[in-house]
Amino acid sequence: MTRFALTVEFDGTPFFGLQRQPHGPSVQGAIENAAHKLTGEDVTLFSAGRTDSGVHALAMRCHLDIEKPFEPFRLMEALNAHLRPDPVAITGCAVKPDDWHARFSCIGRSYEYRIRNRRAPLTLEKGRAWHIARPLDADAMHEAAQALVGRHDFTTFRSAHCQAKDPVKTLDRLDVSREGDAIVIRAAARSFLHHQVRSMVGTLALVGQGTWAIGQVAEALAAKDRAALGLNAPPEGLYFVAAHYPDDN
Amino acid sequence: MTRFALTVEFDGTPFFGLQRQPHGPSVQGAIENAAHKLTGEDVTLFSAGRTDSGVHALAMRCHLDIEKPFEPFRLMEALNAHLRPDPVAITGCAVKPDDWHARFSCIGRSYEYRIRNRRAPLTLEKGRAWHIARPLDADAMHEAAQALVGRHDFTTFRSAHCQAKDPVKTLDRLDVSREGDAIVIRAAARSFLHHQVRSMVGTLALVGQGTWAIGQVAEALAAKDRAALGLNAPPEGLYFVAAHYPDDN
Repeated sequence: MTRFALTVEFDGTPFFGLQRQPHGPSVQGAIENAAHKLTGEDVTLFSAGRTDSGVHALAMRCHLDIEKPFEPFRLMEALNAHLRPDPVAITGCAVKPDDWHARFSCIGRSYEYRIRNRRAPLTLEKGRAWHIARPLDADAMHEAAQALVGRHDFTTFRSAHCQAKDPVKTLDRLDVSREGDAIVIRAAARSFLHHQVRSMVGTLALVGQGTWAIGQVAEALAAKDRAALGLNAPPEGLYFVAAHYPDDN
Repeated sequence: MTRFALTVEFDGTPFFGLQRQPHGPSVQGAIENAAHKLTGEDVTLFSAGRTDSGVHALAMRCHLDIEKPFEPFRLMEALNAHLRPDPVAITGCAVKPDDWHARFSCIGRSYEYRIRNRRAPLTLEKGRAWHIARPLDADAMHEAAQALVGRHDFTTFRSAHCQAKDPVKTLDRLDVSREGDAIVIRAAARSFLHHQVRSMVGTLALVGQGTWAIGQVAEALAAKDRAALGLNAPPEGLYFVAAHYPDDN
């Protein structure tokens, strides 16, 4: 048995999310099926994060155990061949010790959320960004975001379906920057609650539109109440961009 | 009658090209139909460039004449409403003098060609870039490209269907740069021949793979013969990025 770490890129549009679902296609299902076709083995994929339907990944980190011997590059190539035509690509593959775990060994996760802020509808970025027609003040959004950085009870910014035992998390970074008519929000933490990034982004968008005052974000956080949430941003603007491990270079 | 200049962004994937076609959907047809639904008038769209099936535009410049009075912002909004769900967006609209012509007044055109150079297939950029699995030497490509800059007879890099009277063009810029596993080729000229950018990029890709020596690009140019062409790059990596006019700010 060999444990392989995979780096995975996917377009989340056609999937019901990363995690295997009984009622529709998932990224996990696509990779497990590709591995089964290749090896005949029933493999289980573990990943650094779970993503919702429509959420994308540039570099999700995962692992699986395979009995049949493989050179990592050949495994990557063969999995990619079996994954076609699904929009899932294995962009990296490495052998890891048996106690390396894509989820439990992970010490940091980063997301990016992309907004296009303009009147005209999206064309090339349809399904790849959140389209907001009303002008957004990115500086106000960034200022408001700083109230969320640090160790807090994020109950307000957590899905009702979140399974985490503890709503207290440490948010290391929440930066909002404008690049032309694009607004990018970069978030980093050891781990996130379910819907946390989308909930934070949705609320910051209200600040950007002037619907909420900057100080209201801190008040919503202090309320520790999902009902105090401004807005949950749609999934199509969210990208899982990186997972970090102690053995990373 | 008022002449309106439009800035147009589109995803070329579902179209048979920008120009109206008898046998399938076109960007021109989509915009003319939207204008007809809005005004009841039979309008004709003129554009800075013609693009092939699958080629994209970030900021194509076009014009049309409309009898009914419109405030430019309202015209843009109404055209966008009528264009749904086609992946075509009017991102700018301005009134111009009657002698301003999107094609004939244009004094400069810029294209970008995007390559992803990696083993793994594309997911989020499928249909948005040319996927080349073999490693490319971007520095060699850039060096070879400089042989094409300047005033030359570009017969080698011209489609058999090109309708231009004169194959002599002045290429102002052809820069190749690597950004991670992406390679971007930026081309600028007063005007281009049909398939010129794709033909130049395809040939440079042969240099990047080491199939052609750097000096062979200059030889192919000097041959003034379509048969000397290395390769025509596929349309999905090509973006029309800008058109320039004497009255631009």
